[in-house]
Amino acid sequence: MSPSPARPQLYDLAGAQPERRFSPYCWRIKFALAHKGVAFDAIPWRFTDKDVIAFSGQGRVPVLVDGDRAVFDSWTIATYLEDGYPGPSLFGGDGGRTATRFINAWADTVVVGAIARLIVTDIFAVIDEKDRAYFRETREKRFGTTLEAVTADRDARVQEFRQSLEPLRAILGVQPFLGGEAALYADYIVFGCFQWARCASPFQLLLRNDPVWAWRERLLDAFDGLAQKAPGYPL
Amino acid sequence: MSPSPARPQLYDLAGAQPERRFSPYCWRIKFALAHKGVAFDAIPWRFTDKDVIAFSGQGRVPVLVDGDRAVFDSWTIATYLEDGYPGPSLFGGDGGRTATRFINAWADTVVVGAIARLIVTDIFAVIDEKDRAYFRETREKRFGTTLEAVTADRDARVQEFRQSLEPLRAILGVQPFLGGEAALYADYIVFGCFQWARCASPFQLLLRNDPVWAWRERLLDAFDGLAQKAPGYPL
Repeated sequence: MSPSPARPQLYDLAGAQPERRFSPYCWRIKFALAHKGVAFDAIPWRFTDKDVIAFSGQGRVPVLVDGDRAVFDSWTIATYLEDGYPGPSLFGGDGGRTATRFINAWADTVVVGAIARLIVTDIFAVIDEKDRAYFRETREKRFGTTLEAVTADRDARVQEFRQSLEPLRAILGVQPFLGGEAALYADYIVFGCFQWARCASPFQLLLRNDPVWAWRERLLDAFDGLAQKAPGYPL
Repeated sequence: MSPSPARPQLYDLAGAQPERRFSPYCWRIKFALAHKGVAFDAIPWRFTDKDVIAFSGQGRVPVLVDGDRAVFDSWTIATYLEDGYPGPSLFGGDGGRTATRFINAWADTVVVGAIARLIVTDIFAVIDEKDRAYFRETREKRFGTTLEAVTADRDARVQEFRQSLEPLRAILGVQPFLGGEAALYADYIVFGCFQWARCASPFQLLLRNDPVWAWRERLLDAFDGLAQKAPGYPL
């Protein structure tokens, strides 16, 4: 890595195609950095490049290197950015930070899990060759079955996924973003899940008449099309 | 009602026993009023007393009468209290307000629905005689089956309910309240759901070793035992 202290570096999960960056947690941080107006370098990283980020004391991305600091875990990085960088607030105050942490937990336990079960075979298809054995082994252990079995009935299960978004839909019925009139980190948390799917899978998660679709479009356009321009499946 | 402008009046859902106050939405507001340090009168009201609150322009509680203002809908009342009363903030800032609205939507769409399906026959057993036909008719229409059929398999379904609390459990693993170190309206929103069950049903929703149990205990003790003292089933 470059030792430049002026420009933070983000280790960012990549697929076989280096520009395919699909981690939901890394997307949260790329949006948080854009929100704060912080220029950064996103370094492609693969699941099995454990040695490359060993300096962080663990083996998963995002890892943000900022000067002589290495920060990992998306929530920890978001609070690090909030506290260490001026720019617009990611949370809108202390009450926003604590309530946003609930949204983070909801996204991690409900949304990430459900999307994984809908697209995991598509993720397998876009990851780097060297990651495939690792990915299949760890995910099949987690799911207790083959990747192919997990997604086999996804056309039926997607209804249940859409139903699980009801809290998000309820909010978007009264305001354009989870953050209110403008997007905050709460939006990036949930949007990161959809961007993960968009970058890795052609499977259609949302119906076009869903308010969640329109909200996702607004975030695809945000920050000069940061997410829109990323290689993926433009559903 | 008394025309005193100094002490707000809350129309509060009651059972056959007038002191049994079980509405989850009214509990949110009783906690919000206590949080703001606002003394109030809670007036027992039954489901079919539509004429009594007709002045509010609708037929459900909570309805808060504050001087010459009548405010209904728990979220609207909470924001009314936040903006109109000094006291400690219910949301912790603007970002807290918008993110808490998501927690409100999560509680309404996930928690209230799941608890209703576990305790609706117990609610039926404690409501006023005059409300029973109304309650059975409206709820059976909503569920598409008899009340008794809804709760018949609750011993099996309670596991799924406990699983749905995972986002709450994740937060309570790192901080004592959704609001952080101290409770905020986000806590009262979710706690109101449990207090609803506690006031109406002996059915055990939580396991004793669940962090959600300990959090509920902290809120039962809050405000000098406001919820603890209420007639119910002390699980």
